[in-house]
Parts: sequence; structure tokens; C-alpha cells
Amino acid sequence: MTITIESKLQVLKNGHVTSPKGYSAGGVHCGLRKKKLDFGWIHSENPATAAGVYTLNVFQAAPLKVTKESIEKEQLIQTLVVNSANANACTGEQGYLDALETQRKTAGKMGVAVDHVAVASTGVIGVPLPMEKVRAGIELMNDNSSSENFEQAILTTDTVTKHIAVQLEIDGQMITIGGAAKGSGMIHPNMATMLSFITTDAAVEATSLQQALREVTDQSFNMITVDGDCSTNDMVLVLANGKQKNNILNELHPEWQVFKQALQLVSKELAKMIARDGEGATKLIEVQVSGASSVTAAGQIAKAIISSNLVKTAVYGADPNWGRIVCAIGYSEQPLDPQKVCVSLGDIEVVKNGLPVDFDESEGELYLGNETVVLKIDLQNGSHEATAWGCDLTYDYVKINASYRT
Amino acid sequence: MTITIESKLQVLKNGHVTSPKGYSAGGVHCGLRKKKLDFGWIHSENPATAAGVYTLNVFQAAPLKVTKESIEKEQLIQTLVVNSANANACTGEQGYLDALETQRKTAGKMGVAVDHVAVASTGVIGVPLPMEKVRAGIELMNDNSSSENFEQAILTTDTVTKHIAVQLEIDGQMITIGGAAKGSGMIHPNMATMLSFITTDAAVEATSLQQALREVTDQSFNMITVDGDCSTNDMVLVLANGKQKNNILNELHPEWQVFKQALQLVSKELAKMIARDGEGATKLIEVQVSGASSVTAAGQIAKAIISSNLVKTAVYGADPNWGRIVCAIGYSEQPLDPQKVCVSLGDIEVVKNGLPVDFDESEGELYLGNETVVLKIDLQNGSHEATAWGCDLTYDYVKINASYRT
Repeated sequence: MTITIESKLQVLKNGHVTSPKGYSAGGVHCGLRKKKLDFGWIHSENPATAAGVYTLNVFQAAPLKVTKESIEKEQLIQTLVVNSANANACTGEQGYLDALETQRKTAGKMGVAVDHVAVASTGVIGVPLPMEKVRAGIELMNDNSSSENFEQAILTTDTVTKHIAVQLEIDGQMITIGGAAKGSGMIHPNMATMLSFITTDAAVEATSLQQALREVTDQSFNMITVDGDCSTNDMVLVLANGKQKNNILNELHPEWQVFKQALQLVSKELAKMIARDGEGATKLIEVQVSGASSVTAAGQIAKAIISSNLVKTAVYGADPNWGRIVCAIGYSEQPLDPQKVCVSLGDIEVVKNGLPVDFDESEGELYLGNETVVLKIDLQNGSHEATAWGCDLTYDYVKINASYRT
Repeated sequence: MTITIESKLQVLKNGHVTSPKGYSAGGVHCGLRKKKLDFGWIHSENPATAAGVYTLNVFQAAPLKVTKESIEKEQLIQTLVVNSANANACTGEQGYLDALETQRKTAGKMGVAVDHVAVASTGVIGVPLPMEKVRAGIELMNDNSSSENFEQAILTTDTVTKHIAVQLEIDGQMITIGGAAKGSGMIHPNMATMLSFITTDAAVEATSLQQALREVTDQSFNMITVDGDCSTNDMVLVLANGKQKNNILNELHPEWQVFKQALQLVSKELAKMIARDGEGATKLIEVQVSGASSVTAAGQIAKAIISSNLVKTAVYGADPNWGRIVCAIGYSEQPLDPQKVCVSLGDIEVVKNGLPVDFDESEGELYLGNETVVLKIDLQNGSHEATAWGCDLTYDYVKINASYRT
């Protein structure tokens, strides 16, 4: 079934948020960072149906409040702007006013309704947003920029830009979904300094879009961790401008599952790009948990493993020390029978029914030397499964974070 | 009140588990480690009333099962033996039989009842316990060893031994409580590869001792974290041999609170020694949370902060980046009002009522350069408080754990 659906999807070779029809994007340097681009935007030719999910951190940053309030009014966004280098978080009433001004000035510059502008920020917490620079950024918005510039402008400690687009046919129309994301540190289930923007030229009903985004996020952005810290600024926004004339998509449309699958693919790939680019990371770790008594149990166990500093350093050191994996399973506080647990490093079985398997250590070391490492856990305790992604913990993580602001 | 009680306690200058009357201890090399001592024991002249708390990890190691089962029978322990280098965890039926044999052979050697022997192990998971070496260790047990040797024998990646003793007067008798502990990595609330043994010459009722140990553990060993991983082997045991002829201590004894306070002091100091000696650590971090709506909320928030890799690296880098502390408070999922939160680094207030305070950054850096760093959080949301301890996250943590087994 999954294969049938996925076979209808085509990943574009060099996909961006501007791959779907009717979108432009760009990025400029406005002085928030020393030299790098620091102010980016995505613009749709027409107001697009919008949905968003936001951090659960109680110190939610000002731009999230502004964006959330605006989307709640009409579920429409036409322009979104993002600044890096400053999170506009823990900045009180002034921070909120700054986010509102950013929204209002962008609306004026682009000639769109104020409530059709989304704002997002990422960077240092607790420093007032330097508004003269943000205003300069808004003034610099232009038609000659590119989605590559947008992807650059939203980065903080990321080492690479993150983007993708997929296509699928719905109602005889070739629908495209594109996405761009940033995130490298402070990444954890429930979204840490992680921004992700998804665009599509499909026509989608607002409530269905919101529901689909929430579901998809739970299996993608909420299943990655770099360091276990959830940020004040995370958000995922999806815009659907309906430039392709498909019958409006909702739960009743025969192709709804296919569309959701495409949205899922875009989200999952962006999430994996973020995990792989975790601060100091040299490897992507994928933890597949199967045979769980519930999806929640599978997810919690996968997250316990992917969050374990000891597992992360063992993978970094290519040490097939499965005891640390078993240990993390054991403290996940989920229902399981220790005597049924099986663990494999890729296809190398190392634990069967709770007991060590005699395996070739050097083969294990060789496998953990790969750039992508898959840890498979079968609990033999049910039929549910979940997958989580993360990265290894390295000297460079410590280096980056012991001196981030200096 | 607390001061009055603590003034009755005296910390001995060079206290050990043998400071209380009637205990001997020792450690030998039996071949589990290359050169270092690897097999230790504590012995009481008479069977001592015993209480224990054990890891919550579902992969509980074999020695814990054996010790727990024995203490449950008569609440008496006379001899305890500990091996390092091998955890005897995930070793199945054979592991359990090996732990039983260790117990039985120790009983024979020392001439005590089998059920009066406690066994403990720490080290690598999933490798069968080399019984010929353990048997040799038991044969080497002798009267000419010392508590220093015991403290050495139970270490793994620890860099220092950990011991303390305090005295207090009860019923005209000078009561002594001594303790020794090990633990350096895989340390987390709910006890990770952390072993702690406490001895006293007081006479204490078994059920009261068990209850006191549980309470005390919740505010000491369960409030430390090094890397967030809970191990399969943690235990805390307390022995009370009644060599001092006080009226048996229980909840009805007028000095019960003083005794508990002393037990608390020993536990807390041992816990702090473990946190300070965390793998690769250069600093002890103490997080004091006050003004919480409940003890649970205070504890969870303290643990969220002390477990944050971003906070830990910031302290390592002496970077007064309070945004990371606020962020950790925000994702702790505890009831609080973001606009009331105050944060201080030592006595330097950096956040007041949820907003940044203009402070001297260089002063903050100077403070974070100390060997002990106290982070104070006042939630202004109630009257409950909790304290947690941990350490900074450094290059050496990664180094140690990327190559622990090799």
C-alpha cells in the first residue's frame, strides 16, 4: 500500500519552496549577522490557505504569537518573512510590538493585507530585535532574489541549506509541494529552533490542511532530536495557493491520502536533513522501533534511544556497545518485556530475546562507520512502530555550544 | 529549624564506611581489570539491619535481584561484595546463577548466612561475569585491607574515590554514619550506574530505615544527572548494625528527624561528589528552584535545566547565556507563569519577571568560571523548592564515551 502511494510521488532533482507555481522567494543581508544573509521571505501571487504548528515551550517567542493570531483569523498567508541571528524571544511587550511592526511594514512593502503576513525569527534569546536593521531588510525585499537566498538567510549554526520538492498528479493536474527548513541545535521532539516552510500549488481546505500538518509533524519534525532542547521559536507553516485547478482537497477527496503522503515525504526528508546537520554531527542515526504495544510506546522508546548521549557518543566512536541501547530502552518507562527485546545495528543482530548474540565486533564497527546508521529494535510486544532521527554527539557539538555567542 | 538540626551534626575529617563501629572493608585485584582493584567488600561484625533502593530500569541486573530478594527475607546484611568492570546485566539465567554463586561463596568464606550477603556489580553490560576471577576475588578477601581499597575497587571511569562520615549524639551515644559511592557516567535521576553504600552503628528499625532511605534518596541520588542515562545496576544500600546502644530508632523516637537529617547529609554529599566527578566534568552545577507550585514541579524544572546539554556546554564555556536556562524551564511541562520567572547566576540576577536584566556580562563569565556554579530560579508561583546537581558537558565527555570499551 505504502509502495503504491509512494510510487505516485516523484522527488524533483533540485526542488525548492518556489518549485510549486505562483511562489517567489528571496534573502538579503540587513546587518543582523556580520556578512551572511539574514532576512528572507516567501511570497505567493495570491493569498494562500495556511496552517501552522508551533513550539510547546511556554516561553513562546513574539513572532509565533503574531503569526498564530493572524492565521487564526482567515487561514490565509501571502507573504512570510524570517530573520536569523535574533529570536525575538523573552523580549516582553516590546518584542511583541516589534513583531507586529515587522508584519505591518512587510504588508505595506508587498501590498498585501497585514493579517496575510507571517513572521518568524531564529537566533539568540533575550536580546531586543534591532528594528532599524529589520526595517532595512524589509526595504531590500525584491523580485530578483531566489529561493537559494531564502534558504541561506534563515540559517544559524546550520552548515547546509535544506530544501526539497515532490510532484504528484491529482485530478489530472501536476501538483507540486516544496519545502525549506533550518535547524541544527536545540532540536528535540516537539520542535526546537527549527523552522520549516512548505509550499504547494494545490487547492486544499484550511481545516484539512491544518489536520494533515499536525499528523505529519508528529511523524517527522516531532521525531527528531539533536540535543534534547526544545526552543522558544519553532514553527512549521504550510501554504497552499491553489494555482493548480484541482478539486479542493479534503478528507473526502479520493486522492487525500496520496496528498498527505506527499506532505509527509517532504516533512520527513526535511526533518532528516535537520538531524543530519545537527551541531557537530558526522552521522545521521535512524532508530526504528517495531513490535510495540502502541504508537506512543514505540515513539517514546525511539526518542529515548535517539536522545541518549551514551548511544550518540558510541555511534560517533563506531563502538557497537549495544548495552547502551538496551539501557535506554529500559528507562523509557514504556510497557515491554525485557526478555523479548531484539536489537540490530543495520542488519547485524546483536540482541535476541533480551540476550546478547555472538556477532563479529569488527563488522559492527564497520557498520557504525557509515554516514547513516540504522538501529532496529523489535519489542515483540505488539504491532505498532515508530521511527526517530538524530545524530551523533561529537567534540564539535561541545565546541559549537561552549562558544555559540562569542 | 534546619540549622538547629544540622548544628548537631559533625562531619568527620576523613570519614569512611568503616568510621562507624563494627565495620571492616577492603578491596583486591582479581583480574577483572588490568591492574586496578576490582573486587571490594564491606563486612559488619554482626548482621546489620538493611534497606535498599534499586534502579527502575526494566533491564535490572542480576546482582540487584539477588540482593533485593535476600534483604526482603530478613532485612539483614552482614557482608556485601562488589565487583567492577562487569555489570552482570543482560546476562540471562546464567547471570542470575553467577550472582547467586558469588553470594553463596562469599557467605562460605566469611562464615555468614547466605541471605546476609549482598552482591553488586558495575561495568560493561551483556558480557558473562568471569566467575573464575570473581571466585579468586572472594578467596582473596582478608582482614588487612582498608576502606580506601574498597572505595578504589568499586570505581569504573571515576577519577576520585567518594566517601564521607558524620557523627551525631543520640540517647547519649555518639552515632556515626559513613558512606562510599561510585558513579561517573550513565548517571541520572532514578540512579544510573551509581552504587552507594552507607553504614551506621546506630540501632534502627528495618521499616523505618527503608522509609528514610527512600525519602533521602529522592532528594539526593535521584536529583543528580551526568548524562541523562539510567543504568541497569544502580543501588543504594544502608546497613545499621546497632553497635551503639541507642534506643532503637524509628518514627516515634524523639531524635528520628536528626538521624534522618544525618542520613540525608551523607547521601547529598555523596551525590554531589558523583555529579562533580561526572565523566569529563570540570564543574559542579547546582540548580536551585524555588517558588514552585509543588515539590514535583520544582524537581522536574531543576532536572530539565541540569539535563540540558545546551546549559551544560554554556557553563563549560563560561557563557552567561541565560536564554538556554529559560528555554529549559519552558519545555519542562510544569505549571508556571513565564512572566514571573526570575533567574540568577549565583547572586547575579539575569532575568526578572520573565525579562532580561541588564547585567555585566564579564561578571557573569567570571562567576561561571568557578568550580561550583549555582543557578537559582525563582518561579514566584508557590512555596515549594528542589535542588538538583550535575556537571558541565565537555570534550572529555565525548572522548571518554566514544571509546569507553576500547
